[in-house]
Amino acid sequence: MYDVIIIGAGAAGMTAAIYTSRKALKTALITIEIGGQAVQATNIENYPGYKGKGFDLMNKFREQVVEFGTELIPGRVNKLIKKGEGFEVTLTNANKYETKSVILAYGKVPRKLDIHGEEEYIGKGLHVCAVCDAPLYADKVVAVVGGGNSALGSAIYLSKIAKKVYLIHKRDEFRGDEIIVNRVKEKDNIEILLSHIPKKIKGENEVEKFVLENFKDNSERELELDGIFLEIGFTIDVDFVKELIEVNNIKEIVVDKNCNTSQKGIFAAGDVTNMQYKQIVVSAGEGAKAALSAHAYLQGKEIIGTDWDY
Amino acid sequence: MYDVIIIGAGAAGMTAAIYTSRKALKTALITIEIGGQAVQATNIENYPGYKGKGFDLMNKFREQVVEFGTELIPGRVNKLIKKGEGFEVTLTNANKYETKSVILAYGKVPRKLDIHGEEEYIGKGLHVCAVCDAPLYADKVVAVVGGGNSALGSAIYLSKIAKKVYLIHKRDEFRGDEIIVNRVKEKDNIEILLSHIPKKIKGENEVEKFVLENFKDNSERELELDGIFLEIGFTIDVDFVKELIEVNNIKEIVVDKNCNTSQKGIFAAGDVTNMQYKQIVVSAGEGAKAALSAHAYLQGKEIIGTDWDY
Repeated sequence: MYDVIIIGAGAAGMTAAIYTSRKALKTALITIEIGGQAVQATNIENYPGYKGKGFDLMNKFREQVVEFGTELIPGRVNKLIKKGEGFEVTLTNANKYETKSVILAYGKVPRKLDIHGEEEYIGKGLHVCAVCDAPLYADKVVAVVGGGNSALGSAIYLSKIAKKVYLIHKRDEFRGDEIIVNRVKEKDNIEILLSHIPKKIKGENEVEKFVLENFKDNSERELELDGIFLEIGFTIDVDFVKELIEVNNIKEIVVDKNCNTSQKGIFAAGDVTNMQYKQIVVSAGEGAKAALSAHAYLQGKEIIGTDWDY
Repeated sequence: MYDVIIIGAGAAGMTAAIYTSRKALKTALITIEIGGQAVQATNIENYPGYKGKGFDLMNKFREQVVEFGTELIPGRVNKLIKKGEGFEVTLTNANKYETKSVILAYGKVPRKLDIHGEEEYIGKGLHVCAVCDAPLYADKVVAVVGGGNSALGSAIYLSKIAKKVYLIHKRDEFRGDEIIVNRVKEKDNIEILLSHIPKKIKGENEVEKFVLENFKDNSERELELDGIFLEIGFTIDVDFVKELIEVNNIKEIVVDKNCNTSQKGIFAAGDVTNMQYKQIVVSAGEGAKAALSAHAYLQGKEIIGTDWDY
C-alpha cells in the first residue's frame, strides 16, 4: 500500500514526487517515459535558474526524484478504481498497485492533423518530435506545422540542419513569443506560410508532397518536400479516469487552485489539467501544489488559508 | 510608459520578468533587493533542476531577467494609483513611473515575536536571517524559534557553527518535512522544546536570557544564551495597494487561479498573495502565470480555457 501513486513523470509528476518523498510519504511514480514533453525542447530559456536542453533539465529532475526515495515503476496505467478508503491502479501488463492517494500528471500526447491518409506516413516523413527526428533531414526540405513556441523553436532548429523549412500556421499571426518570432524571421531558409491549412499528404510509401489551402483566397499550394513536423498541440487520454473525476469539454481534468480534482484523494497537475498555461515552470509549481495537497489530505487536514512554513 | 511594472524581485517577480520580457513587453522591475526570501535558504533540495544555495539560484534567475531586457529599478514603492487607462507607481524617493499593467510580487517581511522590548534587541543578539548572521555565533549558544522547514533548516545550519542550539516551537509537532525533522533529531547539540512560547528577552544591551512558557503545564524556563533566530513566518505590507485591490483578513492579496487581482490590469504572484503554498517553485510558476495573464490583458484578450502553445 502506497501513500501516493503519481502517474506520469514530466515536470509536474517529478516535482510532485520530489515533494511527497521529502514529506516521507511512500511514493511510487508510474510512467511510460521520463521527462514528458519538456524532453523535446531543444533550447529552454524560460525555466528560471536553468538554460539548456529540455532533456538535460528533465534528467536533473529525475536525479532529485530518485535521491529522495521515490520508487519508479515503468508501465502504462489503464485502470483506476476506488478500493476501500483508497484506490487501485492497474497497468496494461495487469500488475496492480494499491494506494491511499493518486496524483495524475501524465500530460498529453501530440495531436495529429486529422487529414485523410495521415497515419500511413507516421515515421515515413511525418513526425511529431523535431528534436528526435530532425537529424534525418540534413540538406533536405521540410515543413513545420504550428504557430506556438514549439513550432517556432522546431523551425529554427530544423533550419540549421535542413536546406529549407516551410513554417505553416493556420492563423494570420504566430502565438509564440515575439523574441522567437523575430529569430524565425531572420532565418533566410525559413519560408513562412500564414493562413494556410494542411489538406493532404502525397507520396509513394514516404512523404513527397504536402497540399495546403490558403483560406484567405481559397488557393491551393503543393509543396515538394521530404519531411513534415507537427507542432499543433496535444490531446489528453482521460478514458481510464473519467468515471471517477470531472473532465471538461476538451478532455482536461478539472482542478481547483490547489490541484484537487472532483474526487477526494485524487489530485492532478500540469498539462493533463484545465490549468491554462502549459509551461515547464508552471507545471512544476502545480506538481508541488498537488503533492502538498495530497500530504494535507493524508494527514486528515483540510487546508484553509495559507500554509505558511512555520 | 511601460507595458508592465513588476514590483519585487523574488522567485515570482523575476520569473514574471523573464516571461514578460520574452513576450517583448516593455518591462521594469522595481525592487529593494534581488532574490527575496529564497536568498536566505542555505540548502535548497526541492527546486526541481537545482540543488544548492538560495543565493546562487536567485543569481541564476537574475541573469535571465537581465538577459531578456528587463529594466531593473532599485527602490521602494509607496504609492500605486490608477491613471488614465493605466497606473502610476511612486517610489519613496518621489520618482514616478507610468505603466499599462502591474504585477505585484514583493513578498513578505519576517514576523517578529510581538513580545515586550523585542525591538531593542534586533541586531543585538536577535536575528531574522540565520544564513546572514549565524557566523557570529561560533561556539556560542543560540535559540531558533519556529517549526517549519525554515526553522528546522536554520537549526541544522546553526548546529554546525554554534555549540548548542535550542529549537523552540509553539505546537507539539513540527510542520516541516519529516526528512528534515529527522535530520534535526540526529543532531546531538540541538535541544528541541515543543509546546513552548517565548515570553521575554532579557539582557543588558545584548541578548543574555530567553524566558519561555511551557503551555502544557504553564511552567517557565529561562535559557542562558547568546543569540535568538526567529523563523516564525511573515507579514505583508498592503497599505499602498489596499484601496485598489481586495486583500484578505491576513493581509494577503486575493488572486484567482490565473493571478488576476480584483482590479483589471493588476496581477499578483507568490508570497504576497493568498496562494496557499509558499515554495520557490510554486512562486516561480505563479510568476509565469501572472506574466502570461498580463500579456493576454495587454493584447485585449480574455483567456478562456487552455492557452495551448500552438
